[in-house]
Amino acid sequence: MENIIGKEIDGVVKSILASYDTDRTIDRIDIFKRPDKSEIIEMTGDLLKIVYPGFYWDKDYKIYNMNTMLSVTVEDAMYHLNKQIALALAFSGKETEEEKIQEMSQRTSVEFFNKIPAIREVLQMDLDASFDGDPATRYREEIIMSYPGLYAITVYRLAHELFLLDVPLIPRIMTEYAHTRTGIDIHPGATIGKHFFIDHGTGIVVGETSIIGEHVKIYQGVTIGALSTRGGQKLKDVKRHPTIEDNVTIYAGASILGGKTVIGANCIIGSNAFITASVAPNTTVSIKNQELNFKDKTVKDCVASELRQSEDWYYVI
Amino acid sequence: MENIIGKEIDGVVKSILASYDTDRTIDRIDIFKRPDKSEIIEMTGDLLKIVYPGFYWDKDYKIYNMNTMLSVTVEDAMYHLNKQIALALAFSGKETEEEKIQEMSQRTSVEFFNKIPAIREVLQMDLDASFDGDPATRYREEIIMSYPGLYAITVYRLAHELFLLDVPLIPRIMTEYAHTRTGIDIHPGATIGKHFFIDHGTGIVVGETSIIGEHVKIYQGVTIGALSTRGGQKLKDVKRHPTIEDNVTIYAGASILGGKTVIGANCIIGSNAFITASVAPNTTVSIKNQELNFKDKTVKDCVASELRQSEDWYYVI
Amino acid sequence: MENIIGKEIDGVVKSILASYDTDRTIDRIDIFKRPDKSEIIEMTGDLLKIVYPGFYWDKDYKIYNMNTMLSVTVEDAMYHLNKQIALALAFSGKETEEEKIQEMSQRTSVEFFNKIPAIREVLQMDLDASFDGDPATRYREEIIMSYPGLYAITVYRLAHELFLLDVPLIPRIMTEYAHTRTGIDIHPGATIGKHFFIDHGTGIVVGETSIIGEHVKIYQGVTIGALSTRGGQKLKDVKRHPTIEDNVTIYAGASILGGKTVIGANCIIGSNAFITASVAPNTTVSIKNQELNFKDKTVKDCVASELRQSEDWYYVI
Repeated sequence: MENIIGKEIDGVVKSILASYDTDRTIDRIDIFKRPDKSEIIEMTGDLLKIVYPGFYWDKDYKIYNMNTMLSVTVEDAMYHLNKQIALALAFSGKETEEEKIQEMSQRTSVEFFNKIPAIREVLQMDLDASFDGDPATRYREEIIMSYPGLYAITVYRLAHELFLLDVPLIPRIMTEYAHTRTGIDIHPGATIGKHFFIDHGTGIVVGETSIIGEHVKIYQGVTIGALSTRGGQKLKDVKRHPTIEDNVTIYAGASILGGKTVIGANCIIGSNAFITASVAPNTTVSIKNQELNFKDKTVKDCVASELRQSEDWYYVI
Repeated sequence: MENIIGKEIDGVVKSILASYDTDRTIDRIDIFKRPDKSEIIEMTGDLLKIVYPGFYWDKDYKIYNMNTMLSVTVEDAMYHLNKQIALALAFSGKETEEEKIQEMSQRTSVEFFNKIPAIREVLQMDLDASFDGDPATRYREEIIMSYPGLYAITVYRLAHELFLLDVPLIPRIMTEYAHTRTGIDIHPGATIGKHFFIDHGTGIVVGETSIIGEHVKIYQGVTIGALSTRGGQKLKDVKRHPTIEDNVTIYAGASILGGKTVIGANCIIGSNAFITASVAPNTTVSIKNQELNFKDKTVKDCVASELRQSEDWYYVI
Repeated sequence: MENIIGKEIDGVVKSILASYDTDRTIDRIDIFKRPDKSEIIEMTGDLLKIVYPGFYWDKDYKIYNMNTMLSVTVEDAMYHLNKQIALALAFSGKETEEEKIQEMSQRTSVEFFNKIPAIREVLQMDLDASFDGDPATRYREEIIMSYPGLYAITVYRLAHELFLLDVPLIPRIMTEYAHTRTGIDIHPGATIGKHFFIDHGTGIVVGETSIIGEHVKIYQGVTIGALSTRGGQKLKDVKRHPTIEDNVTIYAGASILGGKTVIGANCIIGSNAFITASVAPNTTVSIKNQELNFKDKTVKDCVASELRQSEDWYYVI
């Protein structure tokens, strides 16, 4: 049989290599001048082991002294974070002198790790909020081991500290990795208070300039977003996303949009509500019942009012 | 250059280790007293190999006798399941005597594996339902190899049997793992009949106490959920989720909520319908057409009625 | 203690093996007569390395000459693609003669790889569209390294070429793998123009026969789908999905349905709009503001009009 690939392979490879020879973003091959995604993801995994010691260990570890193992993990995670921060700083051009980059990177790494005990305190509160709010769970440990909501919140809280420390690229790679695993898209720039609870979670979007208070609960499909992003890059750094005050609950599928929108304390926002202006504290907002059409498939085209008269069933208004 | 990390690392590690020294949930390090998530996920992978023999094999296996390989996989999966069940039982406190735990765990493992042939019969029916219902597929094998819907249903059906056998923690870790991979969140406690078809699937939530009949189809973004979970842990074990009877189709984005809500047999629930009360059998429910605003961006502010007169286009009513 | 599993294991294994002995789809064990999912996923990873050289490398590689590495990767990816195409062709029954299968597979592989430089040109345009449209990003590299939208588009564009070359099974396995990682479900059969931008993305569905123009933007939760799939397999190859013309923006949660539906050039479709008929070019469509109920939880049952009089707050109309 003809060896078609054998004959063509040289030409194929050459034409692909030739396509790298421009200055498009996708052609910038130099892997030693930008942070490494896979290393950042691995480091994020180590941070989870540090934050929830004993919950993310591989069965293959044979450990007598857990503290030894945890010390090693902290050192290892800091080594990698430091290396990636230096790469990210160099990439961003924020600093160009090699020595300054190394110093800034080390200071930032130490500062970040010093915050971990405080981050852990908040995470225990988030965990309590998840447990208290969800009748479908039996144990707090179940939440740590299986809930996408707490996972996304944890990665967000870690990434947010790096964001506050002005680290480029890395915080977003971390939260988008959590997005991949959970369907929950929280920008590391968002500000979120303690006792935050996400149930189910798939489809949630929390935008960069959102400000969320304490004891807030949100459900699957909730968007806390911008009214329009037509302005594109010109809107960078403008507050485009809402403020949600303390003790607010936002049910599934609701959208709250706009940088001037404030949802006052203790509000309850009903499912699928579409909100583009502020709501006073203590308000319950729900959409008026949809008008629905009912058609009986057996008794053709009978009207809804007739259907309602059957005894055992009542209908959605 | 100053070795900043070298000087600080001891302090950092100490303060993190010190933060483990409380009795918060997140500090419970003892990994030998609770099931191991990564082992459960691996075991779930083995169960998929057993359920769909030949569809989940790694290319690296060189096998002459598939039955030998499958026998080994069954034994291995049972070994791991048994170990994890024992850990879960000990963790839950349901049983405290070591010997009883071991016995209960073994009995449960055997009972579970004895159900696999029956589970496989149902899964072939689910597969048939997926194929019959979806014009976008060409082969049944394509569904096994690539559809998130069948994947989520498969993990749910396996986890549900463990749930029925009163195994703590493990069923939920399994279904939340499937949730991570598919965006489909089915609680292992839900009851779901044969010939179940999920299309696309992202964003689906099926709550713990849902009861779903046979030949039901649901699409992306459907919630079969609770009306409110404000009661939190007090609502545990209360029927909070709907009953969906046989042959019901629920289109994308619809929400059906509440423990007393029954969707009667043969109903069709239209996209985005929000339903909080029962619907009689044989009913087609659709939302009344949304009122939409049309604005021509070139002819400023012309009214919708004018726009409608153009010839080649008609408009959403 | 009694060794329960030891006594039962033989029976369990036998009954599971016996359950394979029918001719159901799930029992078709022969792994050498169908493509291998894990190998296709690995090959997809290699294609990403080829498309974005330097962005998907593992930190463990020590490379002096990137071109050498890329050449090896191209050859390796082509070897695997060729093997999998041959398996897919044999599986599909489109060709039965072994020699013809091998020839067709080789020709297809070469043809596919020859398209990569052109695919890369389009991907740089998609990247530019993502950057221009999103104020939440700082660098184009951030998008390549972390955005699920560009990831899903990239895998779609690669899979679409294989779809056009009539390769069975493989394109769908590729796009469903991307669906798993991103929550974005684009059928490889869809036709999508240059400068395509997906923001956030979770929950997006783009159906098989959709036709999408250039410079189109879509947000999370958008469905470009069929009106009904009750026809099941009978609808195969019928145009069931909409046409979206150039420069259209579709905001979060909107559904555009039906094979005859055309969204004209330059339209803006507002959040949550549900559209089942065509819209003329240059039209902005938005849903009329929902009627919302407001209830003050402190001042019981006060009406919305009273609430509106408070000074500092205004309300959603």
